[in-house]
Amino acid sequence: MSAIEITSLGTALPKESVNFGKERRYRITGTETQLSLLVESAKKALEAANLTIDDIDVIVGAVAVGLQPIPCTAALVHEQLKPSKNIPAFDINSTCTSFITALDIISNQLEIGRYQRALIVSGDTPSIALNKNERHSFELFGDGAVSAVIQRSEASQILYANQLTLSAGAHLTEIVGGLTTLPSYDFRSDIQEKYQFHMEGRKILKMAVGLVEEGISDLEKAGFPVAEIDMVVPHQASKALGLIMQHIGVPKDKYINLVDEYGNMVSASIPFSLAKAVETGSIKRGDKVLLIGTAAGLTLNALLIKY
Amino acid sequence: MSAIEITSLGTALPKESVNFGKERRYRITGTETQLSLLVESAKKALEAANLTIDDIDVIVGAVAVGLQPIPCTAALVHEQLKPSKNIPAFDINSTCTSFITALDIISNQLEIGRYQRALIVSGDTPSIALNKNERHSFELFGDGAVSAVIQRSEASQILYANQLTLSAGAHLTEIVGGLTTLPSYDFRSDIQEKYQFHMEGRKILKMAVGLVEEGISDLEKAGFPVAEIDMVVPHQASKALGLIMQHIGVPKDKYINLVDEYGNMVSASIPFSLAKAVETGSIKRGDKVLLIGTAAGLTLNALLIKY
Repeated sequence: MSAIEITSLGTALPKESVNFGKERRYRITGTETQLSLLVESAKKALEAANLTIDDIDVIVGAVAVGLQPIPCTAALVHEQLKPSKNIPAFDINSTCTSFITALDIISNQLEIGRYQRALIVSGDTPSIALNKNERHSFELFGDGAVSAVIQRSEASQILYANQLTLSAGAHLTEIVGGLTTLPSYDFRSDIQEKYQFHMEGRKILKMAVGLVEEGISDLEKAGFPVAEIDMVVPHQASKALGLIMQHIGVPKDKYINLVDEYGNMVSASIPFSLAKAVETGSIKRGDKVLLIGTAAGLTLNALLIKY
Repeated sequence: MSAIEITSLGTALPKESVNFGKERRYRITGTETQLSLLVESAKKALEAANLTIDDIDVIVGAVAVGLQPIPCTAALVHEQLKPSKNIPAFDINSTCTSFITALDIISNQLEIGRYQRALIVSGDTPSIALNKNERHSFELFGDGAVSAVIQRSEASQILYANQLTLSAGAHLTEIVGGLTTLPSYDFRSDIQEKYQFHMEGRKILKMAVGLVEEGISDLEKAGFPVAEIDMVVPHQASKALGLIMQHIGVPKDKYINLVDEYGNMVSASIPFSLAKAVETGSIKRGDKVLLIGTAAGLTLNALLIKY
């Protein structure tokens, strides 16, 4: 139980979107990049907190796929934000749930006094790596970024955090090529798919349900029954979101579902859904809010906050 | 000040090495991969601690360049180690100093009771991405992996940790291509260099000296004079190591220099040098040991332990 608050959230979306039926997906065009979205969201989060980058002690990149193999994404965001002190920048990665892992870790570091105030920067541009021939993922993913200012607080708390990784599902969501397993210089158009996003939706769903059940069971054993949660902010993994929420006993008015409007925005989905819920008043200060999601790994992350 | 110990270290090197004059560099061949080295080192670290993977609460990947863009490297190591519980796996990245950042973070998490025992897995295979035409880096880097078991302890301590990032140097060490800034599918042989490692040695050295000076000044201000440190374990960044150590007043018998024998093994260098020093008796339990290094970013990481 850490006395930590999410002071502010800043979001950034591409200007353009495409529609698949009633579903809208935002995708970068022109000069927009993953970096430009990350930096825009970071500036908005700082502004919303009435702070500048010089009030921040550490920049954490919490994205799924980074900008470059070297250096880390946080250092490249740091370069754009131009802090006057040499504040640290590093990345934390649990793919789609990187924001939760970063919030968990940073809350521990703030509590222990390692830092006083952190900027977490999440966001991905999956449109770059989608495979047109894999229709279910091609039509599901959207680009976006969200940053958060995190600091110690008397009023807010991280009540509980838990991560579970079931690596039997490690290859059900992946991009194989681009780093050491399959280097870029081995790229050939006939194996292009290996460098693109691949997801086995049905197999993941089955495993994900089991992981979510285990996660909810752990949460309840820790003394936090689902019925006492004010709002669930799930990763917007797929259209199966409603089924999973129903399965764990969360009624429709107790979770955020933005899959139609924004799709799966990878590491941005959870903080984006939180930001929207705060903006529309679905979440107020003091509410018990569960951030929960499954990610490539296969990982479940759950973090309960008194917002 | 965290009551944390590095319980054990396990190292893994490729079978083959190449020589450049008197310098030896280990490089993967045949079926060896970054993953095989990481897993070998993890198994050795567990064995040295007389533990199995089922005694571990969390697997942290602390590598510079990962295996795949998705999922995180720790999940793919988790898959090979086959824990019977769904223990969490995530990555922490500050390039060459990822091991220090991971040790800093995990020590905070152990202290707060978030986990009881962690496995940190570091290691890179830079040989995959070196540019033959950039001789100074081509002849400098070697492959290797090191894992560490970390747990609470009465006898050992993390005394101090500090990271500084000077992003004005963010592009002095980089691999640009392979992720979103320059995707793999844009690979063409005429821009191959963009997908390879590039380092501006002279410019880095100048900035790195300034960062190291700032880091040492911070350390001394925190009450830890360099003269009281029993052994410095620096990142084996380059042959300039001796000059930098001399510059900050560390005599030859007070730091580990393995540049000739192993070169710069990226994220493996610091834990590998620590492991070698422990193995040869240069570091004993109770010694004050400073892990320090500069990394792409440009980042300085310093962590002082009572080993």
